[in-house]
Amino acid sequence: MKERAALIETALANTVVAHQGPAAPLYESMRYSLLSGGKRIRPILALASCEAVGGRTGEAVGLACAIEMIHTYSMIHDDLPCMDDDDLRRGRPTNHKVYGEAIATLAGDGLLTDAFKVLARCANGSPNARAETVLQTVAELSDSAGSAGMVEGQAIDLLGEGNPMDLARLEYLHSKKTGALFMISVRGGARMGGANDGQLEDLSAYARAFGLAFQVVDDLLDVESSPEQMGKRTQKDQARGKATYPALLGVERSHQLARELIERAQHALAGFGAAAEPLRHLAAYVVERKL
Amino acid sequence: MKERAALIETALANTVVAHQGPAAPLYESMRYSLLSGGKRIRPILALASCEAVGGRTGEAVGLACAIEMIHTYSMIHDDLPCMDDDDLRRGRPTNHKVYGEAIATLAGDGLLTDAFKVLARCANGSPNARAETVLQTVAELSDSAGSAGMVEGQAIDLLGEGNPMDLARLEYLHSKKTGALFMISVRGGARMGGANDGQLEDLSAYARAFGLAFQVVDDLLDVESSPEQMGKRTQKDQARGKATYPALLGVERSHQLARELIERAQHALAGFGAAAEPLRHLAAYVVERKL
Repeated sequence: MKERAALIETALANTVVAHQGPAAPLYESMRYSLLSGGKRIRPILALASCEAVGGRTGEAVGLACAIEMIHTYSMIHDDLPCMDDDDLRRGRPTNHKVYGEAIATLAGDGLLTDAFKVLARCANGSPNARAETVLQTVAELSDSAGSAGMVEGQAIDLLGEGNPMDLARLEYLHSKKTGALFMISVRGGARMGGANDGQLEDLSAYARAFGLAFQVVDDLLDVESSPEQMGKRTQKDQARGKATYPALLGVERSHQLARELIERAQHALAGFGAAAEPLRHLAAYVVERKL
Repeated sequence: MKERAALIETALANTVVAHQGPAAPLYESMRYSLLSGGKRIRPILALASCEAVGGRTGEAVGLACAIEMIHTYSMIHDDLPCMDDDDLRRGRPTNHKVYGEAIATLAGDGLLTDAFKVLARCANGSPNARAETVLQTVAELSDSAGSAGMVEGQAIDLLGEGNPMDLARLEYLHSKKTGALFMISVRGGARMGGANDGQLEDLSAYARAFGLAFQVVDDLLDVESSPEQMGKRTQKDQARGKATYPALLGVERSHQLARELIERAQHALAGFGAAAEPLRHLAAYVVERKL
């Protein structure tokens, strides 16, 4: 995982480069959040998924960067005062605290827009990077990140604050808010590696369980960790009356649910051989993570 | 122009549809701004440019909608309190005045993201809509709208407020802030209509002159019109110490520059026949427009 994360760091740093000139603070702001050392779970998932179907990791690097750019933009916009109003992210001041709200908004817009160029430029005529394949991935990335995916999830989360929510609604919310980007990471990575339809179906089942497990653990970390450990404000879900798994199920049942989901994710990989070891490792990591 | 605008209205209304369910206000907010009856100059340019190279207007409708979605998102985010802080747009309250800042931010994010799906889905295997062509247009749209284009222009505009600016800098600013979207409208429309390299070059010269003329006239309208005529706040450039063409050149010289630029745009179309009449008409419209 460390090796893959390092590969991603280098690729991201080369994708959004520093600029001189009158717009320099814009690029600085984009790089501040993009290169702030996140866990890089989504891009690593994309590489691992590409590998699982027999592709070379290099074939999914462009997609991996595009997804991390979109994930980063969503963090910048989520942290804005008009959204979650957070001051701390990954142990550092949030983007708008450093660059102001206007530049932070634009940095998010820039990262989101540029992501599609990064992906579109992956087409090179090789069998797994034909224009048709890349274009299908562009459409799926837009679908996962936009008003039918992540943006919808974020809207439901904001609009539903303080309203009663049951498990089914919570699962729907997370399938959009965080699940959709995990899904495109896995499916897109596999497609760039030359996946067939059967493999895409199995990997979709993996991604669905993985994404939900990730969210259950995230909710648990929010309850059980300190801001120092997490590098961001914790216990904020409860303060806002947001529905969470621990609130609906209790802490013990939530831990159990996370384990069950990860078993389901591992089960979806049963038809894959040794090439899927990185995906198996990532699933195990999700329930063990402390950050 | 009216006929084309009506075609675009219908296509846009069918592209972003109303939803039921917990995210309904998000879609309402997207539609509120997208379907608020703008002039639709960019999409009409895309259709006219497609036609100028012998394509059918239908071949550029997807691109035209994608560009108008991106233009609309940029208006929503520009109007936010942390950016230009405007209450009025096209004679109606701005998006965040109706839906709140959080949903307005997300509606912008959604329109921007969804635009790439709308464009990507144009590929249908016909000679002018091969995946290679559409993918190249995706890359160019991202480039025009992102941190190397519109977003950069917006950042320069914000960062430069109150600083002295000369004509060369002002032209650079506008080539990014508004020019880049005009450029992709014209070039993308032409590409979807099957343009060759020579045609793309001539049309790029047209788009460059057209975009700049549009901006000069926009600056003049800001000085010479009332808020009632424009449906938005006017004379705000001067209040903020923003450089404008009338401020740098005077009103008379600015009118003359706009006419010269439109002549240059018309000249770039010299090699095109009757099929370029709509583009010629649009260029003439830009200097005559009162809104």
